[in-house]
Amino acid sequence: DFAKIDNHRALRRGIPEVIYCQGKTTSQVVEIARHMAKNGSNVIGTRADLKTFHDVQMIAPDAKYYEDARIFAIIREKVPQNTGTIAVVTAGTSDIPVAEEAAVTAELFGNPVERLYDVGVAGIHRLLMNVNALQSATVIVVVAGMEGALASVVGGLVDKPVVAVPTSVGYGANFGGLSALLAMLNSCAGGISVVNIDNGFGAAYVAHQINRLANKEE
Amino acid sequence: DFAKIDNHRALRRGIPEVIYCQGKTTSQVVEIARHMAKNGSNVIGTRADLKTFHDVQMIAPDAKYYEDARIFAIIREKVPQNTGTIAVVTAGTSDIPVAEEAAVTAELFGNPVERLYDVGVAGIHRLLMNVNALQSATVIVVVAGMEGALASVVGGLVDKPVVAVPTSVGYGANFGGLSALLAMLNSCAGGISVVNIDNGFGAAYVAHQINRLANKEE
Amino acid sequence: DFAKIDNHRALRRGIPEVIYCQGKTTSQVVEIARHMAKNGSNVIGTRADLKTFHDVQMIAPDAKYYEDARIFAIIREKVPQNTGTIAVVTAGTSDIPVAEEAAVTAELFGNPVERLYDVGVAGIHRLLMNVNALQSATVIVVVAGMEGALASVVGGLVDKPVVAVPTSVGYGANFGGLSALLAMLNSCAGGISVVNIDNGFGAAYVAHQINRLANKEE
Amino acid sequence: DFAKIDNHRALRRGIPEVIYCQGKTTSQVVEIARHMAKNGSNVIGTRADLKTFHDVQMIAPDAKYYEDARIFAIIREKVPQNTGTIAVVTAGTSDIPVAEEAAVTAELFGNPVERLYDVGVAGIHRLLMNVNALQSATVIVVVAGMEGALASVVGGLVDKPVVAVPTSVGYGANFGGLSALLAMLNSCAGGISVVNIDNGFGAAYVAHQINRLANKEE
Amino acid sequence: DFAKIDNHRALRRGIPEVIYCQGKTTSQVVEIARHMAKNGSNVIGTRADLKTFHDVQMIAPDAKYYEDARIFAIIREKVPQNTGTIAVVTAGTSDIPVAEEAAVTAELFGNPVERLYDVGVAGIHRLLMNVNALQSATVIVVVAGMEGALASVVGGLVDKPVVAVPTSVGYGANFGGLSALLAMLNSCAGGISVVNIDNGFGAAYVAHQINRLANKEE
Amino acid sequence: DFAKIDNHRALRRGIPEVIYCQGKTTSQVVEIARHMAKNGSNVIGTRADLKTFHDVQMIAPDAKYYEDARIFAIIREKVPQNTGTIAVVTAGTSDIPVAEEAAVTAELFGNPVERLYDVGVAGIHRLLMNVNALQSATVIVVVAGMEGALASVVGGLVDKPVVAVPTSVGYGANFGGLSALLAMLNSCAGGISVVNIDNGFGAAYVAHQINRLANKEE
Amino acid sequence: DFAKIDNHRALRRGIPEVIYCQGKTTSQVVEIARHMAKNGSNVIGTRADLKTFHDVQMIAPDAKYYEDARIFAIIREKVPQNTGTIAVVTAGTSDIPVAEEAAVTAELFGNPVERLYDVGVAGIHRLLMNVNALQSATVIVVVAGMEGALASVVGGLVDKPVVAVPTSVGYGANFGGLSALLAMLNSCAGGISVVNIDNGFGAAYVAHQINRLANKEE
Amino acid sequence: DFAKIDNHRALRRGIPEVIYCQGKTTSQVVEIARHMAKNGSNVIGTRADLKTFHDVQMIAPDAKYYEDARIFAIIREKVPQNTGTIAVVTAGTSDIPVAEEAAVTAELFGNPVERLYDVGVAGIHRLLMNVNALQSATVIVVVAGMEGALASVVGGLVDKPVVAVPTSVGYGANFGGLSALLAMLNSCAGGISVVNIDNGFGAAYVAHQINRLANKEE
Ligand SMILES: Nc1ncnc2c1ncn2[C@@H]1O[C@H](COP(=O)(O)O)[C@@H](O)[C@H]1O
Ligand SMILES: Nc1ncnc2c1ncn2[C@@H]1O[C@H](COP(=O)(O)O)[C@@H](O)[C@H]1O
Ligand SMILES: Nc1ncnc2c1ncn2[C@@H]1O[C@H](COP(=O)(O)O)[C@@H](O)[C@H]1O
Ligand SMILES: Nc1ncnc2c1ncn2[C@@H]1O[C@H](COP(=O)(O)O)[C@@H](O)[C@H]1O
Ligand SMILES: [Mg+2]
Ligand SMILES: [Mg+2]
Ligand SMILES: [Mg+2]
Ligand SMILES: [Mg+2]
Ligand SMILES: [Mg+2]
Ligand SMILES: [Mg+2]
Ligand SMILES: [Mg+2]
Ligand SMILES: [Mg+2]
Repeated sequence: DFAKIDNHRALRRGIPEVIYCQGKTTSQVVEIARHMAKNGSNVIGTRADLKTFHDVQMIAPDAKYYEDARIFAIIREKVPQNTGTIAVVTAGTSDIPVAEEAAVTAELFGNPVERLYDVGVAGIHRLLMNVNALQSATVIVVVAGMEGALASVVGGLVDKPVVAVPTSVGYGANFGGLSALLAMLNSCAGGISVVNIDNGFGAAYVAHQINRLANKEE
Repeated sequence: DFAKIDNHRALRRGIPEVIYCQGKTTSQVVEIARHMAKNGSNVIGTRADLKTFHDVQMIAPDAKYYEDARIFAIIREKVPQNTGTIAVVTAGTSDIPVAEEAAVTAELFGNPVERLYDVGVAGIHRLLMNVNALQSATVIVVVAGMEGALASVVGGLVDKPVVAVPTSVGYGANFGGLSALLAMLNSCAGGISVVNIDNGFGAAYVAHQINRLANKEE
Repeated sequence: DFAKIDNHRALRRGIPEVIYCQGKTTSQVVEIARHMAKNGSNVIGTRADLKTFHDVQMIAPDAKYYEDARIFAIIREKVPQNTGTIAVVTAGTSDIPVAEEAAVTAELFGNPVERLYDVGVAGIHRLLMNVNALQSATVIVVVAGMEGALASVVGGLVDKPVVAVPTSVGYGANFGGLSALLAMLNSCAGGISVVNIDNGFGAAYVAHQINRLANKEE
Repeated sequence: DFAKIDNHRALRRGIPEVIYCQGKTTSQVVEIARHMAKNGSNVIGTRADLKTFHDVQMIAPDAKYYEDARIFAIIREKVPQNTGTIAVVTAGTSDIPVAEEAAVTAELFGNPVERLYDVGVAGIHRLLMNVNALQSATVIVVVAGMEGALASVVGGLVDKPVVAVPTSVGYGANFGGLSALLAMLNSCAGGISVVNIDNGFGAAYVAHQINRLANKEE
Repeated sequence: DFAKIDNHRALRRGIPEVIYCQGKTTSQVVEIARHMAKNGSNVIGTRADLKTFHDVQMIAPDAKYYEDARIFAIIREKVPQNTGTIAVVTAGTSDIPVAEEAAVTAELFGNPVERLYDVGVAGIHRLLMNVNALQSATVIVVVAGMEGALASVVGGLVDKPVVAVPTSVGYGANFGGLSALLAMLNSCAGGISVVNIDNGFGAAYVAHQINRLANKEE
Repeated sequence: DFAKIDNHRALRRGIPEVIYCQGKTTSQVVEIARHMAKNGSNVIGTRADLKTFHDVQMIAPDAKYYEDARIFAIIREKVPQNTGTIAVVTAGTSDIPVAEEAAVTAELFGNPVERLYDVGVAGIHRLLMNVNALQSATVIVVVAGMEGALASVVGGLVDKPVVAVPTSVGYGANFGGLSALLAMLNSCAGGISVVNIDNGFGAAYVAHQINRLANKEE
Repeated sequence: DFAKIDNHRALRRGIPEVIYCQGKTTSQVVEIARHMAKNGSNVIGTRADLKTFHDVQMIAPDAKYYEDARIFAIIREKVPQNTGTIAVVTAGTSDIPVAEEAAVTAELFGNPVERLYDVGVAGIHRLLMNVNALQSATVIVVVAGMEGALASVVGGLVDKPVVAVPTSVGYGANFGGLSALLAMLNSCAGGISVVNIDNGFGAAYVAHQINRLANKEE
Repeated sequence: DFAKIDNHRALRRGIPEVIYCQGKTTSQVVEIARHMAKNGSNVIGTRADLKTFHDVQMIAPDAKYYEDARIFAIIREKVPQNTGTIAVVTAGTSDIPVAEEAAVTAELFGNPVERLYDVGVAGIHRLLMNVNALQSATVIVVVAGMEGALASVVGGLVDKPVVAVPTSVGYGANFGGLSALLAMLNSCAGGISVVNIDNGFGAAYVAHQINRLANKEE
């Protein structure tokens, strides 16, 4: 009983239970997953390596693994689907793992996802070519490391909520993601809020909660 | 022509034009306000001191001043109203100026606002007594300085988006709001995103955009 | 003679001698342990890996190892027992190793310990269900990473001293435990004092000294 | 109703209600004090300047002001007295205001206080001459800025809990108290826990809670 | 003789002598200016307030003052003119003082200057409307506070050297200009180098040296 | 299509396409390189380890590897040559890998390069002996870790633009290159601008853009 | 008795007693000075403003004030004189107040002082012209803000101990003296040790202790 | 010729040439050592691992290795001996490697060394028992991590120069040695100067230069 599992949360929230695997032993993860699944919850695990997935498969052969996102999922009950789209946008190629954590989480929580990768501001035409896709989304998740400027530019092009995810991509004076974090917190564009460095999951969670509000009939 | 004013923004966004007064001279503020109002926009000024308001009144005698919030407003056109409520919650009494910046902005942008002040976690019963008010809001803005713990507790009590505003309230190892900022970014509760330290305006902006999505008929 | 061992300390303090194993070679640890034990002291080693324990067993076959806590102990003399209880509380599952360092140390120093794990503030009901256990302790050790909010909430629920241990659990803007450390130092609840990041041992030491004072007949 | 006042706190805790005056307007402080006193609570205000005190005197002519400590007090009910002594120790002369905040708070909460000022480690004989006073206290509050070394030395001389208060005294690389804060958190002596920079009040609160536990008949 | 003045510098560099007035007494500034002017140098003073200018006028009635830039100038010899243009671009209105320090310095050093103010990335069309002006400059100085994103976007639109000046404009997590500084250092666009926070003078100096190299006949 | 490749950039800029290999999988790098080369671009990869080079050789047997610089290059089209020289200067031997990243990039972009290594300020005669080489360059790239003083001294000896590259060489209070970075940003010598810690590539890019401007007939 | 004065210190150390006036009330300073002087000690006060000096003059009409250094001195007994010279060197004009604190302290402690001001590395010839003066000193105190490079260059030119004093001179990314502090701590030149930012007094104290050791007959 | 070796330095300074091995390849170290030794210099290498030593032995079979200190030495010429003693003092056992770097360097530079290890302030009697040894040294090198308090206490007990070496020993809020560094820079005891974190070599260098000055006949 090293983890107190709250089975009402799934009802209360309408989303799968989530296990944050980093910092837990594999057997702790398996144990929590077994317990949750036994109670009928859908279960996903984030920051899960391949070995954890394989051990989870032992107790749940129908589990799936999303390698880029480092997520495993045991989905047995239908997840209610939202109508609006969540756009997930990255500045560069190296931001993709964090973006996939966001995109896969959003999908598993019942949201249509539109991916727009490698459209960073150093070549602004790449972003401008995709303005329509951005503007037709309900929420936009912007994933960027280094100077994190993409969030501000996107924020100026849409009038929908933007959830910004700074990444630790970069080196030197990026100080592990601090540069992008500070840039996003100080954005001169309105409508931007920020989650932790590399926290794709958290951004998807926020985006899902917003997207659910936007359902026209619920 | 020290400021390029974009009159399409009001249409695109459906909200008043906003002047951030800090770092501008009073005559710059008045000049920008005059220009915007002449083009028919509603105008609000944040971080405006009394002197700035008085000078604005010269050119707009119908301007109003919200002292706690440090906001002036010239509202001449009806602002479209959202149906859901934005709750603005503070941990302590000293966080109220930032909360008022958020609450007044949200109201001027067309949102019903529910204020819940001084319900910090050191006396958790104060928060628990108000769970209903929290849960019936569409979006919750949590304003807290010092350890910023209120955001996490609120995040665990509701299944709506929480926009967290760290404040610079405190001293010593609060390092100008860093303690609350880091706490909120690292919240173990889902559904929380964060804006800049003391940025009540930014939180209201995000909350407004979310609340607008939640309108059942638009 | 790389370490000056003070055998009067055990008398002066009434607790086992402690070796902090990190940053010492295994043979230094064994040498110090041998010397202390020869003089009749109880000896414990913190931050000890399995290999160190095995080498200590060579010279003290009765040594015990507490794996989660990473502590070994050579207890040959009865340790005086305190009457009050020390509660050790964690926010999450990942904080358990630090909590165990605290709990095992407290037990080895002669204190009854009550463990309450994974009761973080994101699900406040988990904590509220355990208020009685908290309130019947003499001292409470709160172990939490990420936003460290648990210390403030616990501090508001009890009128006993709370010793807060920030952990390095988390990632990104937790900056190795800084987020929880700052949060705990800035707690708006009274009665909270703080030890170093991940310093379960130090918290137990403080809690033991307080608990000893609370003995009604000494 | 900008502040939710909890009248049960006095009962639950057995100490006066406390108003933290910094960041509140004088009229907010007077209002809160009036309300608390009306309900029969003893009231103290910390970080109160002379002007605030004079305004409080208007509604409570029996209020007292402790200038060095910057505390006002309205004491109408007898405060229960603890038997043990709290020693308050400073490294230098400049640390005295913080020490007085601690000492006066401790006295108003019902504790005998022993003051030992200007006994910093650069002249260790000053401290050694006072070892008896230190060792006969139940709790020791150590107040030091700059390198904060006093906490460690005191911690090694006593076997009672030491509550360390880093101060912002110093300049340059003291970074507003960071040097003393980090030093105290990293103390190699056991039994030391730390409160916020310049937080004399918080240290007294912790020390009072410990000292109350030490009462032989309660 | 509190300042060793190097009269060969003007020859070696072909630019006026510069006095950095901050941190010097007014009479030190006047004394240095008098000495330099006597030797036939053109002299400018940066970070000079109005009072300093008035005192300088006493000894040099032909001195001029550039109020926004906080620069005074005593120009008696013709400064050689460069052929290319230096563009000075700002994100917002509050960045103008720093930009004027850059623009006026650049002009006094013999460079044609093109000012483009308030074209920040939150309204990207403002920048795109001015691409021609950017692309026809030889060097571009980008002045931006807050998230400093403008440097990256400009860097992607031109193939000329961009000198980025972070400003301290903003509040909270801008940490006195750190956010813009880190963003600019981590820019994903090539061709950007950075000077100190608010250092308009330094940027102009670099830009001038580059522009001088670009003179087709020298 | 994880990376949007912009083939117009080569035309627009006149330099090879560059792949930043760190944080990309080897197969991503190979894929991007293949695509770029197929379109006729010259291609270079920075931060490329030997394994990446070998995989690139599979699809481009004429690829070359510069071991010290950690750069691979596929050069099939003649790169236009600039007339001026870029000097690359290091303070110590340990800064050479960063310097080589700069020097090799500069050469591959068409610039004559003069290397001056290990001429740090602790033995100022080493630098003074090379003043001629410094002064005959068009741009100087200064690469230094630890205290980064070399940039200031070089800046005082030349009247050409200096691009400073702080390195992470050092330990302890160099904080991963922060010491050199801050030193260079605060240089009292004019004409110095700074790129990210260890960013030899970025410095070469800036230097190349400047050097291109200096071509007398283009 | 707010300050414990140690009259043996003068004997033990052979130097005047020192009062650090900042953070003390004027009457505390006067009281301590009176007490020290009454016991026959020479007394100096650092960080003393004019008002403090005037109040000290009331009780010691022979007191002297060194305005640039912000030091007052009551010297009644002959101070033993050292034979070697202490050189005090500054990078710029703005560093002079800190340098004077060092120089005046050194003189009052009995050392011949050679001042070399405004010889910063941006014009290295200024330093090279003074190598003889540097090399004939016994100890060199180097005072520099901004990038602090002067310490390294001086360290390479002499084979005597160099005491480096970083100053808070500068702005932006000097972060209150951090840039010079880190540069000096990371100096690649041997023989350099560092005192606190702006601590001219501390540097003089160290230099005096070294210079005393160098006396050939003592 | 990746390293410019200055053979006059040995003459000028009277000490062996030193190679800082970290960040250099083994073959670079061997090459430099060979070159120096060929010119008749004594040579030492710091931060040298066993493999580097073995490769150096190939070209200098008489080389010696000091394992704790991680130093190799090729000594062929007699080093001039100083008369005074350098005391090297550590707070704990884990600081010994840094202390040995200092002690061995000092010995190889010709100084008698007195080692006093594990005399940290938590057990102040250990230090007080050794006051004579401290007071009879000419210079004291204090090596301490964590809170670094030892430097201040030693500084108060002696009237000789103290060179303080902060170490990275500790964890959590020691931030890689920052806690000890700041403590030592802010010491309230006079006569203390500081070198970089873990820089035993640098401390020995400074101590040697001071000790050489103290030679009564040179
Ligand atoms: N990748 C992630 N980053 C941050 N938080 C996460 C992540 N994955 C899950 N979480 C949060 O962690 C909680 C589970 O934590 P635990 O009880 O330790 O398994 C979930 O409810 C989520 O709010
Ligand atoms: N000087 C002080 N420093 C830190 N906390 C304080 C201080 N004085 C009072 N407090 C705390 O502030 C609380 C009152 O806060 P408030 O409701 O804002 O008046 C008290 O219950 C104390 O825990
Ligand atoms: N606003 C400024 N910011 C930074 N550096 C400046 C500024 N103005 C002048 N300087 C530099 O300061 C030097 C003059 O410094 P000083 O000798 O102290 O007057 C000039 O050569 C410039 O390089
Ligand atoms: N300007 C200064 N900066 C740092 N320390 C100083 C300064 N002036 C004096 N001190 C130190 O402060 C001690 C006196 O402190 P106090 O007892 O507070 O007067 C002296 O013994 C000096 O070591
Ligand atoms: Mg890309
Ligand atoms: Mg309150
Ligand atoms: Mg959990
Ligand atoms: Mg004192
Ligand atoms: Mg604008
Ligand atoms: Mg070298
Ligand atoms: Mg100067
Ligand atoms: Mg020890």
